[in-house]
Amino acid sequence: MSDIKPPTESILDRIAGPQDLHDLSEEELSALAQEVREHIINTVGEIGGHFGANLGTCELAVALHSLLDSPRDKILWDVGHQAYPHKILTGRAAQLHTIRQYSGLAPFCSIAESEHDIMGAGHASTSIGYAVGIKEGMRHSGRDDGGVVAVIGDGAMTGGVAFEAIGQAGGLGTPIVVVLNDNGMSIAPNVGALSRYFNRVRLNPKLWHARTGVEGGLTRLPGGIGAAFERLGPQLKESIKAFWAPGLWWEELDWAYMGVVDGHDVRALREALREALAAQRPVVVHIATVKGKGFAPAEEGGLEGMEKWHAAKPKSIVDGMPARPPAPSKPAASSTPSVPQYTQVFGEALLSECQRDERIVGITAAMNSGTGLNILQKAMPERYFDVGIAEQQAILFAAGLALQGVKPVAAIYSTFLQRAYDQIVHDVCLQKLNVVFAMDRAGLVGDDGPTHHGAFDIAYLRCLPNMVLMAPRDEAMLVHMLHTALTYDDGPIALRYPRGEGIGVQLPTEPRALRIGTGEILREGGATALAGTRVALVGYGTGVDKSLEAAQELADSGIEVTVADARFAKPIDIGLMAQLAAEHDLLVTVEEGVLAGGFGSAVWETLNESGAATPRIMRVGLPDRYVTHGKPALLHEEVGFTGARIAERVRKAILDRQSAEVRA
Amino acid sequence: MSDIKPPTESILDRIAGPQDLHDLSEEELSALAQEVREHIINTVGEIGGHFGANLGTCELAVALHSLLDSPRDKILWDVGHQAYPHKILTGRAAQLHTIRQYSGLAPFCSIAESEHDIMGAGHASTSIGYAVGIKEGMRHSGRDDGGVVAVIGDGAMTGGVAFEAIGQAGGLGTPIVVVLNDNGMSIAPNVGALSRYFNRVRLNPKLWHARTGVEGGLTRLPGGIGAAFERLGPQLKESIKAFWAPGLWWEELDWAYMGVVDGHDVRALREALREALAAQRPVVVHIATVKGKGFAPAEEGGLEGMEKWHAAKPKSIVDGMPARPPAPSKPAASSTPSVPQYTQVFGEALLSECQRDERIVGITAAMNSGTGLNILQKAMPERYFDVGIAEQQAILFAAGLALQGVKPVAAIYSTFLQRAYDQIVHDVCLQKLNVVFAMDRAGLVGDDGPTHHGAFDIAYLRCLPNMVLMAPRDEAMLVHMLHTALTYDDGPIALRYPRGEGIGVQLPTEPRALRIGTGEILREGGATALAGTRVALVGYGTGVDKSLEAAQELADSGIEVTVADARFAKPIDIGLMAQLAAEHDLLVTVEEGVLAGGFGSAVWETLNESGAATPRIMRVGLPDRYVTHGKPALLHEEVGFTGARIAERVRKAILDRQSAEVRA
Repeated sequence: MSDIKPPTESILDRIAGPQDLHDLSEEELSALAQEVREHIINTVGEIGGHFGANLGTCELAVALHSLLDSPRDKILWDVGHQAYPHKILTGRAAQLHTIRQYSGLAPFCSIAESEHDIMGAGHASTSIGYAVGIKEGMRHSGRDDGGVVAVIGDGAMTGGVAFEAIGQAGGLGTPIVVVLNDNGMSIAPNVGALSRYFNRVRLNPKLWHARTGVEGGLTRLPGGIGAAFERLGPQLKESIKAFWAPGLWWEELDWAYMGVVDGHDVRALREALREALAAQRPVVVHIATVKGKGFAPAEEGGLEGMEKWHAAKPKSIVDGMPARPPAPSKPAASSTPSVPQYTQVFGEALLSECQRDERIVGITAAMNSGTGLNILQKAMPERYFDVGIAEQQAILFAAGLALQGVKPVAAIYSTFLQRAYDQIVHDVCLQKLNVVFAMDRAGLVGDDGPTHHGAFDIAYLRCLPNMVLMAPRDEAMLVHMLHTALTYDDGPIALRYPRGEGIGVQLPTEPRALRIGTGEILREGGATALAGTRVALVGYGTGVDKSLEAAQELADSGIEVTVADARFAKPIDIGLMAQLAAEHDLLVTVEEGVLAGGFGSAVWETLNESGAATPRIMRVGLPDRYVTHGKPALLHEEVGFTGARIAERVRKAILDRQSAEVRA
Repeated sequence: MSDIKPPTESILDRIAGPQDLHDLSEEELSALAQEVREHIINTVGEIGGHFGANLGTCELAVALHSLLDSPRDKILWDVGHQAYPHKILTGRAAQLHTIRQYSGLAPFCSIAESEHDIMGAGHASTSIGYAVGIKEGMRHSGRDDGGVVAVIGDGAMTGGVAFEAIGQAGGLGTPIVVVLNDNGMSIAPNVGALSRYFNRVRLNPKLWHARTGVEGGLTRLPGGIGAAFERLGPQLKESIKAFWAPGLWWEELDWAYMGVVDGHDVRALREALREALAAQRPVVVHIATVKGKGFAPAEEGGLEGMEKWHAAKPKSIVDGMPARPPAPSKPAASSTPSVPQYTQVFGEALLSECQRDERIVGITAAMNSGTGLNILQKAMPERYFDVGIAEQQAILFAAGLALQGVKPVAAIYSTFLQRAYDQIVHDVCLQKLNVVFAMDRAGLVGDDGPTHHGAFDIAYLRCLPNMVLMAPRDEAMLVHMLHTALTYDDGPIALRYPRGEGIGVQLPTEPRALRIGTGEILREGGATALAGTRVALVGYGTGVDKSLEAAQELADSGIEVTVADARFAKPIDIGLMAQLAAEHDLLVTVEEGVLAGGFGSAVWETLNESGAATPRIMRVGLPDRYVTHGKPALLHEEVGFTGARIAERVRKAILDRQSAEVRA
């Protein structure tokens, strides 16, 4: 065009969409990747967010979009926490500073956000499965013209569903390309045999130009071997290939393997991807990337540096370097540092329990510090098991341990435990094994949004026989409940607790075991001034504190209500509920979970089954829709999960009842 | 002992428990295996039950129990439908004729049944995960003395959780033995790349003595190659091993591989197992067995014969040969052959839909004829996808297809769909994709028992946003509902239907689409003769027919009640429910699913949310416990899910209400 650009203008400024990459030279593409990286360092360093993985995919995103025609061609980003470069290149550079914020860009890929986000992501290991479906869908529709590329990390490869998808694609010969983005890390360092296999391949410099000259090379082998190969036939040739090409593992599954490619070399990436896309069969392109590439504290900080900089705190980077004082690496960073996170309280309580009872062990599925199990790992590494991104195996492993009299505590986020649902139903509850489920991130998690909210666990666990469910109202009760779970020996037991800080109560010096299925009354109400309607709020978990807030607000306006902590969602304390029902005209159940089949329904079911007279029940909880991302306080306000909103609904219910009586 | 045994006494008669195998010679062990086989042919041929897989494991079970000291040593049978020889050898030979029958032996392995059944089984792919937990549990407890062996079929190996477990065991170096029982079949022939890999290995006679002489053998290679190896170093040696030992796939995951061993040769099995158990690291012993071994119609009938004889019908074998007339191979075998099975109606309806709309495809997870998808496969193979035992991938694949405008129908048993729960939550519902879930085997399935009952799907799906749930009251409605699902285009939709025969209604010539979320009244009741209590029964799925039966029984004694078919559990027809609530004093909800969070609670939630006055609600459904195995009629009686039992409860409720009013 005729525009005269000032020489200082960046290439990134000229990128309105991925098609703008098609005419750039490889030098410009490399420069663009670096600009994308700097944009991420500056933006995420200021606002906080996923960091290290995104710095590792700048060249890859540039290479993919320079070759492909998105969204006709489909690029799928597994999990999506490494998709910031993709977002930047697909018209969202200017919005990057809003990412993870309420009504800002989504934390992961989102179909609703952009036509270039082909699949919604957040949970790991799904991209290959989607890719097979999309490509076979193209074939089925007779529009078999677009390329389909799934980008998956080596960590996510340990998830069983990825393996299932590899098997299907290999079986069908579905022509998709998987880019194995191998940085040797999940969020924490990877574990397991697959990870060791990738390491052997990645770390062996001899293998970096694996394919080159394989075919011809055989005959140039020393010692007369080359000539002999011709006589020995294709089978030995195949096996020799394993020496030159480390991809036999893949090739046995009918995938072509290419690698290892330098994931920070745009030219090498383009060359490999071009070849892979042309192959018309399942191809994996194994690339080596560095988590935190281009940001020295991550890149040069070893494994610890990489794990620390998986995500960046807000204002943690100034002028491309860590801000001083350095951002704290513990999850307890907050404005009120004296209040610990639930995660930390759990981690410390578990360590104490392990010190008291040698039968106890902790299990995580690649969420070492996210679950607080890093505390146990550090103090008693022999009592700590990380199965990798493999929630199903976490639970089977726990079941096996329980059969041997070990007391396993499986610490898994509420949303990720969904992956192990059948193992919970079939391998733990049916077998009535003593497995403890510690569900962190129950309720609305905030910035990570709908893929990560723990909204369903009350409903999906409550329906299972032999299961006991509890939720602490504060961090002190979490300590007691973990102890309760570990002294209970009549089958599985689960506790759910939220992300974030506790409410600031004193932690107990000695934990005590609760009687299973008992709640307690925390505040005694009475007949209110308004029309004599007696109200009891019954909270579960975080619902208790909201109930107490609502009660205080109501009390301030002269309405005294009862507040009870149910403590258990299964079994429900029928004695307490019958008493509350008998003495009140309105029961309000408060839970941070979906209402369909949730705690409120459990209260009704229990009262109904007992034949007790049931007063009007009002249920407060999460709505029957997926809730967006943003700060928890905003989300709680949006869904009405605040003391003020509960108080408002109670007031209205009292007035409604009054008018109904006046009319009658 | 001094007992003089008559020479005709069998060896099996002398086996009271597995320890009795320890002193037998290998000739006696081989003879014993054959006796076990004959016992199975005779017994299962008479009473019906899993068949082919059990004939394949006779030698293996004998070899394992002859070497191991069960239950100190742990033998884990994946799925457990191949564990009849194990049951026979562990003191249950005389009870084999009761297997799968009410209060008889369990269909699979059961912890409650025998100390030799180490883990409960039924669902596939769990044994390796359990084995890792058990062995690590032994280590943890300082009792690391017992051997742990998991027997898993090649079909079950495609399940992702098996792969997760392989990764963990390889990573930890857990010394367990996996016997890969490779017969080339799931229930249907296997699919996918892993299966092809196993085939290549199994079918290559050169590989049958794989390990023998590998190390020494290298130097004896022709053409001077041998000498050259020494110079080339360990890496080439490693790669050459892949030629001789086909286990590189496993070895890359840090497992030692042994195979292929003839699974019907007791001596060879014992030799391999002895070596594997001594290895003190993860070892896989790959054995080749024949499904239906020793029973000519299965063994010599090719793939079809093996699939047909996966299970035997009652009285299908006389004197070791198929009874005449031959047992029918279709699932429709019954005393009233004019009434088709739901499965068959579904399969034919899906074919019709596919013929009308080219966007529709069917997906099964290794349950070809079990889901009725064999009908589609035969008529339109290009519209049929079998992903193998890989339910998670079935749903991701469906999600990918849906993104391309294809209309996937995922036909998966209710109980197996639990495996894909996270994919339903995260990859289908959150993304609001048009995936149809056809859940066969919803409710109590009968002989297969607690691992296979479809008890939880209403609860675990109802809590998910964007999901629509429906259940047909009869086979005609199944046709309409499948059509409804396929014309619906606003997100996921699921239908559940039972195992077994329909109720005998005429099938529609043209299906029609129901309005989403609408039920209907089938029978108008009124105020009863007793105390004016007006009763409405609201059924869901199979609950409707039970409601109609109850209504008829009540009518016979002069009590006229209303019967409605809710048709949808989500969304509930609020108009209908409000009407029923307004016009009746008692609502009885009837569903073949657990009550906790189930359909009955949905009715209450909907009425409660609407603010409508709610009459007393009585919920009929499955109890909060796992229900045993046996004929469905017996199980329905046990749990009170019959017209008579519902009528009885209604009568009692009317009388209770009457007495309460008299007292008042």
